[in-house]
Amino acid sequence: MAAKNKMLIFLGDGMGGRPVPELGGRTTLEAAETPALDRIAAEGACGMLNPVSPGIAVGSDTSHMALLGYDPFKYYRGRGPFEAKGVGLEVNTGDVAFRCNFATVEGRKVIDRRAGRIKSGTDELTAAINQQIPEIEGVQIVFRNSVEHRAALVLRGEGLDEHVTEVDSHHEGLDYLDSKPLPGYEDNQAALRTARIVNEFVSHSHEVLKDHPVNKQREADGLLPANITLPRGVGTAVELQPFADRYKLNGAMIVEVDLVRGLGLYLGMDVIACEGATGGRDTDEMAIARAVVSAFDNHDFVLANIKAPDLGGHDGDVEQKIGAIRKVDRALAYVLDNMDFNHTVVMIGADHCTPISVGDHSGDAIPAAFFGCGVTPDEVNSYGERACARGYLGHFTGGDLMHLLTNYSGTEEKFGA
Amino acid sequence: MAAKNKMLIFLGDGMGGRPVPELGGRTTLEAAETPALDRIAAEGACGMLNPVSPGIAVGSDTSHMALLGYDPFKYYRGRGPFEAKGVGLEVNTGDVAFRCNFATVEGRKVIDRRAGRIKSGTDELTAAINQQIPEIEGVQIVFRNSVEHRAALVLRGEGLDEHVTEVDSHHEGLDYLDSKPLPGYEDNQAALRTARIVNEFVSHSHEVLKDHPVNKQREADGLLPANITLPRGVGTAVELQPFADRYKLNGAMIVEVDLVRGLGLYLGMDVIACEGATGGRDTDEMAIARAVVSAFDNHDFVLANIKAPDLGGHDGDVEQKIGAIRKVDRALAYVLDNMDFNHTVVMIGADHCTPISVGDHSGDAIPAAFFGCGVTPDEVNSYGERACARGYLGHFTGGDLMHLLTNYSGTEEKFGA
Repeated sequence: MAAKNKMLIFLGDGMGGRPVPELGGRTTLEAAETPALDRIAAEGACGMLNPVSPGIAVGSDTSHMALLGYDPFKYYRGRGPFEAKGVGLEVNTGDVAFRCNFATVEGRKVIDRRAGRIKSGTDELTAAINQQIPEIEGVQIVFRNSVEHRAALVLRGEGLDEHVTEVDSHHEGLDYLDSKPLPGYEDNQAALRTARIVNEFVSHSHEVLKDHPVNKQREADGLLPANITLPRGVGTAVELQPFADRYKLNGAMIVEVDLVRGLGLYLGMDVIACEGATGGRDTDEMAIARAVVSAFDNHDFVLANIKAPDLGGHDGDVEQKIGAIRKVDRALAYVLDNMDFNHTVVMIGADHCTPISVGDHSGDAIPAAFFGCGVTPDEVNSYGERACARGYLGHFTGGDLMHLLTNYSGTEEKFGA
Repeated sequence: MAAKNKMLIFLGDGMGGRPVPELGGRTTLEAAETPALDRIAAEGACGMLNPVSPGIAVGSDTSHMALLGYDPFKYYRGRGPFEAKGVGLEVNTGDVAFRCNFATVEGRKVIDRRAGRIKSGTDELTAAINQQIPEIEGVQIVFRNSVEHRAALVLRGEGLDEHVTEVDSHHEGLDYLDSKPLPGYEDNQAALRTARIVNEFVSHSHEVLKDHPVNKQREADGLLPANITLPRGVGTAVELQPFADRYKLNGAMIVEVDLVRGLGLYLGMDVIACEGATGGRDTDEMAIARAVVSAFDNHDFVLANIKAPDLGGHDGDVEQKIGAIRKVDRALAYVLDNMDFNHTVVMIGADHCTPISVGDHSGDAIPAAFFGCGVTPDEVNSYGERACARGYLGHFTGGDLMHLLTNYSGTEEKFGA
């Protein structure tokens, strides 16, 4: 099909919120000066997005699944496979996968969950692990490091089950934990076996790493040794229809979170790296904006997500969140100036709300605005929670989003005759 | 978890409606003076509640199931089990249960469906039935009386099916009916057997009761004898996850209808009796209000329902319905004055609409207003059908309600990472 219209999902992570007393009862979105977002609202159609359904608080993984049309209630079986994909591991249907940290322990006590945010040497440590722990109980062990202390673990073989607890205690000063079957799975042989293999892997990893030359050198340099790996975020890999097959679209993702990047890879999308996109407060939003515009040179569909607003929400930092929202607005302004919205439709939104007053994801509906080809403008003229709630599109769900976009872009296939 | 925020569902039964010509096209809710309801709307967030989905007219049982998050399309198999629970019977999965009336018949002709609203003596009549009809065809017969003419019947055993017709003809002067399989179940052996057992029970009950000393005395006193029991409202008992397991909440119900009380008991909720709550036009709404406030001393969650507005709707009595709505408003005012809404979230609504012009439940959406912790106020400033339709929350379903409440109260668990 020639000259297809383009589709863009442009997200400010956790950008939605609730009233903030110090902002006179406005939300951070309502208080922030956002000329580009407001222009989208004024010239487009607004509504409220519920990633799954009203009131359900979603994670980044479940939300992005839902926004791309993959029902997480049906397909989500834990974050592990996306984490593993995100660090570059192959993941096959049936694999049980974990996010891992290189950490520092003394005995069982966790001294540092990130091994002093180890900067180098994890390639050698990983090679040692993979060489010395190729399998346990006939199950293949695949381990891979990523940046700093980050890594992932895949268990591949028969008779595995993801309903097991984490090894990482998430608190320094506490002992790391033994994995065991989740409540209700105590008699599940596959869960018992999976927990046993995980525990054995952790203990082997300590044996392999504790006297490794990299760690000897770190200790000599006064650095914390990366003398164990601590698995968490378990999940099992389920079959998801690749994005390209499902939508007949050539899709890309430009995102700042490994977990979401992993989902993109899992779906076979092009996950585009963007120099300057740090995932932090200091991210280069203009680099992201340029990457989005460039991505459309050879893609029909792009999902972009700027992480910074979520950080302010988690930290309860009003000024930071407002500043991050302005970053999103500046990036959007560049996209508006550099693309042809007679042949592009964009939805502005978020993967979830992260209200200042909650300090975590909430189940509140997310303000959404559509702009570009096919969109019927409404009377809303600013982008924010209560403004968008008066919009033309009412409340809709993540499961509706791809249909709305393909409808506006003219690529939605007629259902029926 | 300490100091959880509290959740309240506060319902005026059948409170929603449609325009009434004699009110100048306003609904009864729009016409009634309701300062407390309007305050909730003004300081909270409004929307429209569809218990199941738009247009579906629900009963009290199916609606309350839906509002508590139990999909009635999936789990509802008739009212009988809730009626039986409501009169204090045990009900087990697979039982077939009926609501019953003590009635007066001559031959097969029903003289009074309520045996002159018999006030006393049904304990003895019930004992006689249970002693003389312990089983039929190997199926255990469990019968229990409640207040006045009310009773319930449970059949317990193998090979039963609830797809059978009622014995109660619902009209005095007509013969009572033989139970038989419903259309489509004529060849269903379990339905045939269930109908046969019901008919045999009814005929036995007449034999046991017709010459019983209680009835001889009633006749001597010029009262109608309670000489038969007439089953109706059949249903089979399905397994419903207890409310406490499902939500990790300590939930209570303060309601005025046996059927709904039975649902509460079925879900293992604390069903709190409230002296003065008559279920009638004369109910003591302030007693209900005080019971609601007290219930939060040892519960996280309360569902309260004042029945009176529904009665006016069924009777087409505009003044009565408006008066009943004012009762709801006065009760709500007391709750507002006596609870801390920094740590409580309430939804005001109804289980269904009972429009004056319909005289029965309709499938219209119900105005809803949320107020308290976590809620983002909108611009709606009165409580009514057309005002709430402009609210922040748009249309939502009964299946969304518990998620919305747990989202606001901060007890919704994040789905995903």
